[in-house]
Amino acid sequence: MKVVNDLLNINNMKIVQDTDYFNFSLDSVILSDYVTPRKGDKIIDFCSGNCPVPMILTTKTKDKIYAVELQKEVYELGKESIKLNKLDKQIELLNMDVKDLCDKFETDTFDIITCNPPYFKINEQTKQNDNEIKRIARHEIYLNLDDIFKVCKKLLKNNGKVVMIHRPERLEEIMKSMTDNNITPKIIRFIYPKEGQNSNMIIIEGRKNARKGIKVLPPLIVHNKDNEYRDEIKKMFGVDCNE
Amino acid sequence: MKVVNDLLNINNMKIVQDTDYFNFSLDSVILSDYVTPRKGDKIIDFCSGNCPVPMILTTKTKDKIYAVELQKEVYELGKESIKLNKLDKQIELLNMDVKDLCDKFETDTFDIITCNPPYFKINEQTKQNDNEIKRIARHEIYLNLDDIFKVCKKLLKNNGKVVMIHRPERLEEIMKSMTDNNITPKIIRFIYPKEGQNSNMIIIEGRKNARKGIKVLPPLIVHNKDNEYRDEIKKMFGVDCNE
Repeated sequence: MKVVNDLLNINNMKIVQDTDYFNFSLDSVILSDYVTPRKGDKIIDFCSGNCPVPMILTTKTKDKIYAVELQKEVYELGKESIKLNKLDKQIELLNMDVKDLCDKFETDTFDIITCNPPYFKINEQTKQNDNEIKRIARHEIYLNLDDIFKVCKKLLKNNGKVVMIHRPERLEEIMKSMTDNNITPKIIRFIYPKEGQNSNMIIIEGRKNARKGIKVLPPLIVHNKDNEYRDEIKKMFGVDCNE
Repeated sequence: MKVVNDLLNINNMKIVQDTDYFNFSLDSVILSDYVTPRKGDKIIDFCSGNCPVPMILTTKTKDKIYAVELQKEVYELGKESIKLNKLDKQIELLNMDVKDLCDKFETDTFDIITCNPPYFKINEQTKQNDNEIKRIARHEIYLNLDDIFKVCKKLLKNNGKVVMIHRPERLEEIMKSMTDNNITPKIIRFIYPKEGQNSNMIIIEGRKNARKGIKVLPPLIVHNKDNEYRDEIKKMFGVDCNE
């Protein structure tokens, strides 16, 4: 069922979702919050889904943002969201395979690539009762880590950054794939659902051809003891916390 | 200058140090606290220094613990500490190069290897005013990550674990070297000096020939706002926190 939900408390931003197959989640908000574009940065978002990341990024930059979504049905939701928020001049959403982007753009084009990719390997946790659209969005059916970083290697400028949100389970594979493609892991932030619990998300920033050396930022803890969002998360949604 | 300091509040444990060149630090206490041997586990500690790790481990197991220290002067401090605490029956301290351990022990011998290795690459931060003993303990002059994990690969039993304390800056190199040597990174804990600061230490556990998949434990924050040790750290030193 198609619905229109609030995306952020900023600019009264809305997002078009389909409860059957595509809803944005906290991942996208955390990913967008992490990125702070400088003026003139060329930006592209991979695996955009219904476009929460590029839409949130428009609150931080006036520059053009490219976005890419493979699945036609999800792309249509994104298109609709972009239109609804009158962002069609700033966001160019492409309905194509990330792997084909090197045919469309010159090498060394982008300063920032953001990506909220499929998290799971195909053989892992592939729920048979999920529909095809969900399966493709969540599992590495059409796109895996190596595919992504191969494209990053080509499309990023020297010292350009890719920022990805992913699962800590796959940290070693992510770093290896980055390194294999001349992307140096530089900054990581671990996200924990609650104090005392294991991490369930990571933000990782890599830079093309950068010197080795990783900085691990302070932990981001999502909920307080009462299961409410902590202030840092509320602020990401544009809620005024009066601190 | 040689001094005798308290190591832990448990068993009135003492440690012999030399203020000119070797003092145990929090790293060793965190590393030892992390490890919980099962009865019968064969244990060896690499880069033992003046032996805080094997000594603390004797509070957790009655089984024999091997320890290895390359530098004669530091080895002598360790010997003295072990004797002072009457642990010479349980700890066998070897004055040798970790790289030569494969000549001394059969392959597939150990269940647990602990290691607080030299943290820095030779070309990095090598302070010329440090004395030679400090330089060797802190920099990868005689032993680097690959040397260590090559030996772990041989000496660990199948599914045996190596637990290392290190710097987050080198996380990618550590994981790569583990993986190159059939040691799968399985558990990581990030340690932060204070709330809101970047991580300055990591504990990483790898297991020989294990299935891929990393668990990131809750953050360990060392100091409270008043720069005192937080309760979790105090407990590691055997301080009763009345919680």
